[in-house]
Amino acid sequence: MSCNCARINNRKWDVETNSNIVESIYQTYEDTTGINHIEECNLPQHTEIIRVLKDLIETIFPGYSGRNSFSKVGIKCEIGAIINSCFERLSEQIERSLNYYCTLRQCEGSDCKDRSVDATIKLLECIPKIREVLKKDIHAFMSGDPAASSKDEVISSYPGIKALVIHRIAHELYKDEVPFIPRVMSEHAHHETGIDIHPGATIDSGLFIDHGTGVVVGETAIIGKNCKLYQGVTLGAISFPTDKEGNAIKGQPRHPILEDHVTVYASATILGNINIGHHSVVGGNVWLMDAIPPYTHVSLNKPELHIRTKKK
Amino acid sequence: MSCNCARINNRKWDVETNSNIVESIYQTYEDTTGINHIEECNLPQHTEIIRVLKDLIETIFPGYSGRNSFSKVGIKCEIGAIINSCFERLSEQIERSLNYYCTLRQCEGSDCKDRSVDATIKLLECIPKIREVLKKDIHAFMSGDPAASSKDEVISSYPGIKALVIHRIAHELYKDEVPFIPRVMSEHAHHETGIDIHPGATIDSGLFIDHGTGVVVGETAIIGKNCKLYQGVTLGAISFPTDKEGNAIKGQPRHPILEDHVTVYASATILGNINIGHHSVVGGNVWLMDAIPPYTHVSLNKPELHIRTKKK
Amino acid sequence: MSCNCARINNRKWDVETNSNIVESIYQTYEDTTGINHIEECNLPQHTEIIRVLKDLIETIFPGYSGRNSFSKVGIKCEIGAIINSCFERLSEQIERSLNYYCTLRQCEGSDCKDRSVDATIKLLECIPKIREVLKKDIHAFMSGDPAASSKDEVISSYPGIKALVIHRIAHELYKDEVPFIPRVMSEHAHHETGIDIHPGATIDSGLFIDHGTGVVVGETAIIGKNCKLYQGVTLGAISFPTDKEGNAIKGQPRHPILEDHVTVYASATILGNINIGHHSVVGGNVWLMDAIPPYTHVSLNKPELHIRTKKK
Repeated sequence: MSCNCARINNRKWDVETNSNIVESIYQTYEDTTGINHIEECNLPQHTEIIRVLKDLIETIFPGYSGRNSFSKVGIKCEIGAIINSCFERLSEQIERSLNYYCTLRQCEGSDCKDRSVDATIKLLECIPKIREVLKKDIHAFMSGDPAASSKDEVISSYPGIKALVIHRIAHELYKDEVPFIPRVMSEHAHHETGIDIHPGATIDSGLFIDHGTGVVVGETAIIGKNCKLYQGVTLGAISFPTDKEGNAIKGQPRHPILEDHVTVYASATILGNINIGHHSVVGGNVWLMDAIPPYTHVSLNKPELHIRTKKK
Repeated sequence: MSCNCARINNRKWDVETNSNIVESIYQTYEDTTGINHIEECNLPQHTEIIRVLKDLIETIFPGYSGRNSFSKVGIKCEIGAIINSCFERLSEQIERSLNYYCTLRQCEGSDCKDRSVDATIKLLECIPKIREVLKKDIHAFMSGDPAASSKDEVISSYPGIKALVIHRIAHELYKDEVPFIPRVMSEHAHHETGIDIHPGATIDSGLFIDHGTGVVVGETAIIGKNCKLYQGVTLGAISFPTDKEGNAIKGQPRHPILEDHVTVYASATILGNINIGHHSVVGGNVWLMDAIPPYTHVSLNKPELHIRTKKK
Repeated sequence: MSCNCARINNRKWDVETNSNIVESIYQTYEDTTGINHIEECNLPQHTEIIRVLKDLIETIFPGYSGRNSFSKVGIKCEIGAIINSCFERLSEQIERSLNYYCTLRQCEGSDCKDRSVDATIKLLECIPKIREVLKKDIHAFMSGDPAASSKDEVISSYPGIKALVIHRIAHELYKDEVPFIPRVMSEHAHHETGIDIHPGATIDSGLFIDHGTGVVVGETAIIGKNCKLYQGVTLGAISFPTDKEGNAIKGQPRHPILEDHVTVYASATILGNINIGHHSVVGGNVWLMDAIPPYTHVSLNKPELHIRTKKK
């Protein structure tokens, strides 16, 4: 007999062993707080949020995912159906996340349902605007990368565009003070692309992100029009005040501001709430913690390289 | 009643709201070009390309995915069936991508079907050669990493090998001037591994990529035999000429050439169409924009560290 | 007719072509070793390992995945069922991996089944301890990141926590000398998060990993209590002795030791088996190959930046 029951028929794994292990795990569920979700079924659902996000992207770049193919005659109905379904599912997730935060903060929360409907409608109404901005982003990718051969290739294959479309959706929800969900979306983008943009970051149109792996853009960063970021660039914070319990105080501006037409080359790190003047260029590997005026070019002094010839 | 219809039965989300939103989105589909694929159903299908790619990898590393288990008696038939299915599906995707480019460039394109068949057969005929090269790559991983305990572990768990097998497939299609698909494959590898190798890069056998996250290898880079790249290494371009409309001119050599037996340590950046002589070593964090002769060892002068003791 | 058969009905792809290609691939299966798994069906199964891993995480953070929702009354039974299923499936995978290594090393291996049962039970018995440690990790994330607004958000959206929960499971199996499986788990975490922690690394409680993309922690690294690692940090090896055949000798300590309360900022690289004293801070981009005493602050001398104003 080769069934599993036979295979594990041995003296070591028995009802008692299982029961002891379960009991010891169960004890920790009772003792600790904050790392269980038992009987708190209203937490927003990760999988469902990602599913809605994909549908929203479908309305922004119709036909690219390959999941649906649209015809000129049918597209209005088809998009209408997707939008309606997004409304129902997203408003439910937003309601869950508002309820959850009300519980956490012990407020009344009687208007969570209303607020969830408002926030969802507001987001859906932004889609045309998001499309306009992304059009400029795609143009920036075409100009910026000699290897980009068509807009379709950019939309289909460039992680920078994937990160931006998700960011532009998540940022609308963030501005509307929807908790939890924007961060789930941005972390999905990070997972998909290696580009970690906090949903709080304010990013104007025409951003080009090349390669992208390791890019980090912090919560209070502001990026102007037509900027370029290469792989490994960090727009980060230096330090932040903490409260009496040692927790970081939330919400203070602590990240850089890039004015229009700023280029930041690979692995440069810009830290703190400083201003990078428009049309400036920050060279690769530069570590910058001071503001710079417009039209400034910052690079490392050519590093002294230690060069020696080995055995021939 | 707890059905969804009831839940969203409120004054704000009604037929008119949905209709207004859809109308405003629909307007942008008409106004803009290049970010819709409506009634252009011949665009290659992302999901299908990835599925074929996985089947091709199955013929290269049979039995590792766990999706199929092969027996000595049956393997020829089983591989035969996979190869036949790959031919059918890949030639369809290549035909779609050739058709798409013909539309884009307004050429005639009457031979797209023939060319798709040729390109597919050519790729399939390369599989034995790809296996030979990968065998040397795997050997390089075994020699290079003290933590690697068997070839099977390397094939099953090392992102560098995953990136290389996909690159070696995508590069064959790239050489054969198949548009669109190689880039979809390489971006899939980037997504899976954090290693971003443009399908245009020419990579000889025995390459070892350790960890890999953040590695970027540009379109016109050339890597000789038995080289090693560590995490965060960039083989990139400095700048490139643009045409009158400000778009980058495509196809010029603009990336480094690594001769045989070159090692590049973590986070080093080599930029421009320069030559790195054989048996050379480029140290961690080095930022290099000049050619170096064979047997050269380049490292940063030991940086002056600012060291101070804090309160005790 | 639009069926596929018709589509590919052309003179080029026929039985002979397919047969020739298959034959040439098949030859390489016979000629080479180590890159096939034909009739070696006992190799551990990648997909199944990841599935068990997700179930184990479900018992550690119950309710977060959204796959199950737990009630106070039912949770003991539900966790009991998951634990039992994990035992059955994980012990089978461990048995496969032990058998595989016995074959590889030509030892007897008659006790593989017993050892697999022991190792599985030992891991399951560690879950309460793992939960205690992760509780401290989550606290460290809350203190360390001003953008973190609740423990639930940290568990749901922070890649650092995902990497740590997987590492803490994989490390238990590694300590117990289970081959193959820990590395599959850690590479899954790397794939999911961009954080590459070798299962051999010894990591005490309260570690905060921010952003995480590009973090590399080597096999013999040791990290004390309450440390912080930012994106792009490498705790790596310098070099290692090789045997006569040029293969790296395995298992020697070759990575850094971080004592308690050490902070390492973004893109710093610490190499070799050196000691970083407690309460020390290693600044961003620092490249460190020498030990430092406790309470030491190491940073790059402020680099001379080359700053020039462009046309206005």
